[in-house]
Amino acid sequence: MSHTVEILSVGTELLLGSIVNSDAQALSRELAGLGLNVLYHSVVGDNPGRLAAAVELAKSRADVIVTTGGLGPTCDDLTKQTLAECFGKKLVYHPECAEGIRCFFHSMGKGMTDNNLQQAWLPEGCQVLDNAWGTAPGCAFEADGRYVVMLPGPPRECLPMFRERAVPWLARLGEGVIRSRTLRVFGLGESAVEDLLRERMNALQNPTLAPYAKEGEVELRITAKAATAAEADGLITPVEAEVRAILGDLVYGADVSGLPQVVLEGARRRGLTLGTAESCTGGLIAKRLTDVPGSASVFKGGVVSYHCEVKAGVLGVSQALLDEKGAVCAEVAEQMALGARKALGVDLAVSATGVAGPDPDERGNPVGLVYTALAAPDGCWVKELNLTSQAARRDRNRNLAANHALDMVRRWLEGSAEPL
Amino acid sequence: MSHTVEILSVGTELLLGSIVNSDAQALSRELAGLGLNVLYHSVVGDNPGRLAAAVELAKSRADVIVTTGGLGPTCDDLTKQTLAECFGKKLVYHPECAEGIRCFFHSMGKGMTDNNLQQAWLPEGCQVLDNAWGTAPGCAFEADGRYVVMLPGPPRECLPMFRERAVPWLARLGEGVIRSRTLRVFGLGESAVEDLLRERMNALQNPTLAPYAKEGEVELRITAKAATAAEADGLITPVEAEVRAILGDLVYGADVSGLPQVVLEGARRRGLTLGTAESCTGGLIAKRLTDVPGSASVFKGGVVSYHCEVKAGVLGVSQALLDEKGAVCAEVAEQMALGARKALGVDLAVSATGVAGPDPDERGNPVGLVYTALAAPDGCWVKELNLTSQAARRDRNRNLAANHALDMVRRWLEGSAEPL
Repeated sequence: MSHTVEILSVGTELLLGSIVNSDAQALSRELAGLGLNVLYHSVVGDNPGRLAAAVELAKSRADVIVTTGGLGPTCDDLTKQTLAECFGKKLVYHPECAEGIRCFFHSMGKGMTDNNLQQAWLPEGCQVLDNAWGTAPGCAFEADGRYVVMLPGPPRECLPMFRERAVPWLARLGEGVIRSRTLRVFGLGESAVEDLLRERMNALQNPTLAPYAKEGEVELRITAKAATAAEADGLITPVEAEVRAILGDLVYGADVSGLPQVVLEGARRRGLTLGTAESCTGGLIAKRLTDVPGSASVFKGGVVSYHCEVKAGVLGVSQALLDEKGAVCAEVAEQMALGARKALGVDLAVSATGVAGPDPDERGNPVGLVYTALAAPDGCWVKELNLTSQAARRDRNRNLAANHALDMVRRWLEGSAEPL
Repeated sequence: MSHTVEILSVGTELLLGSIVNSDAQALSRELAGLGLNVLYHSVVGDNPGRLAAAVELAKSRADVIVTTGGLGPTCDDLTKQTLAECFGKKLVYHPECAEGIRCFFHSMGKGMTDNNLQQAWLPEGCQVLDNAWGTAPGCAFEADGRYVVMLPGPPRECLPMFRERAVPWLARLGEGVIRSRTLRVFGLGESAVEDLLRERMNALQNPTLAPYAKEGEVELRITAKAATAAEADGLITPVEAEVRAILGDLVYGADVSGLPQVVLEGARRRGLTLGTAESCTGGLIAKRLTDVPGSASVFKGGVVSYHCEVKAGVLGVSQALLDEKGAVCAEVAEQMALGARKALGVDLAVSATGVAGPDPDERGNPVGLVYTALAAPDGCWVKELNLTSQAARRDRNRNLAANHALDMVRRWLEGSAEPL
């Protein structure tokens, strides 16, 4: 029978709306991927009485309780104190945790105040979850027929702590190891992907196969439970192969952060450089490439040619063409990519020109009409896109246009004869 | 006495982690701004039994209940059905709502299926909250000593529905009108802003003055309750003047979306054009400017000169300078801005060059060292920034660098003699 989970987040800053509860989202996805059934999210402030009542409630309606936040010295380790009390446990001092906290401060080159050592007090009999991403250790214990996991609040600590520390501990729920692999798919909507895979998804029990829609992309998570990691991986691999056989090159990577990472790694492997020429995306493609640390070894630069003058002056797009057809046409996309390839001195250049919205352009081209192009050593390709025409979807249109442009590079790097 | 609030969100997609609960964050900020005390967030799935239990719980611990989601035909109007039952109310048909739903579909140029008319059934005696941003109307009622507000889930509907429809209804809690104005501050951290304003913040009762930290910025919300809007505005205005007197030109706008909007509007008013030259920000400044619809009337384009070759080749930065000092120095920032001004044919150009992280550059410049420059018709200014040296703060460093660059333009447009 599937276990039921409540995610209990502690933090007045959540109730004030200063931050969004991204931990609850990230953990929900991870827990669903483990086959656990998240039934409740709840948030309380830094208040012992309300937190204790929320813990009692969670005990009454879920058998796995995952808390986030309220660890660490500034909140007096509220969560650990309160959870320990609710489960009739004492806090005991863990010298090895104190040492870990001292080391963390040392590695950051910072002085440590003594109240940080308070964090080394943890519920008796718990499993300490070392925090390699911050100072407050987490912990996990089983009591009163409930499984409790306590994680720090900062998202940069919470998610890796869950993946690296809590998941192995939670394996006891299924009496084995849980592993997952995420395939990323671009070029087909979630419902179309589901249609193609529904039969297999319904038939599969272990591993499970679950889709998650992202803006303009779909993630497919394959999750297996087994006695050992190798055995779990052995269950995942044939399902991955099956999915890839069905979806073909719509699958652009496994366990990758996104198209920018795949494009950068592909180009790096082949010793090629990359540049951009952007009109409607306005710098977004370059921004997303340079979000990735180390992108400088591949990405040389880009031109944001928002005005036609810049298209002509910096990228060398024909002024006669711009006068005749305007900025939104296949030929301009092509000349932008070719011009960027030359002006930036790169092997591969992508471009995007179109109407992101909210209004049609002055020539009456509709919102959502975008052309992307790729200029490579062996040719130049242009793709016409008809994205959403809703005026309010400017951000979505820009994101999709960037994804399509990056996907052309990805396909070319994979050796596609027509990288569209 | 201050009212206590629970935000109850309904949606299995939240529990699966498919979407983040941004409604709860946005509403929490709004409610805090109204002087209401949000004590709980809770999330349940599309399940009548668990929702009913959650409503009973909310009734027992809060006097204002704000629900999001679970309206609309795809979820069988779960929230309205369940809330009505929990408060012993029937659903009654509102013909004027049906008409509104028909009009919405007509205005979108879409056909309407009959199940949409289900949405015109609302709890008896409620105040209908018209939805001008989607199809599902919201509603509000008072019963059993509780105030209930039901809003649609999609964030693009939820927040405007709250501001435009729910806030006037909630005014009954304070027996009057609630108005707020948000000042945006750049250049000083939250705690420093609080230090400067603490005495006033503590002394003020109506209006209230509350700071909210954002990435590299602070928002100051002034909220007043009064019998009429004019009276409330009359209470806000002198406090705004007081805050501006204390913080001076650190305040860059009131009720604006951010620095890009202020910079674009300032340049538009003066008929000036704008361009960018970006190294470490990698297109982020251009991306943020072009996020704003209508930016094309001011922003002509930009160059992302990630490699030195592009700095020299496209922007005309001196190769000798690059050889001698490398890319991260004041002179390169200056030449990038001057070069962009010329290459792009713009009145104002900003640049950023530095080390975003995670690693120091090959010359040993530390993570967080960034230079931004502004080239204007009357001169060129350079600013040295020492942002965070934490390796993991690449995104933060890039955001802050972009803000500093934009703030230089803002200060120049405001007539500052030294726009730093």
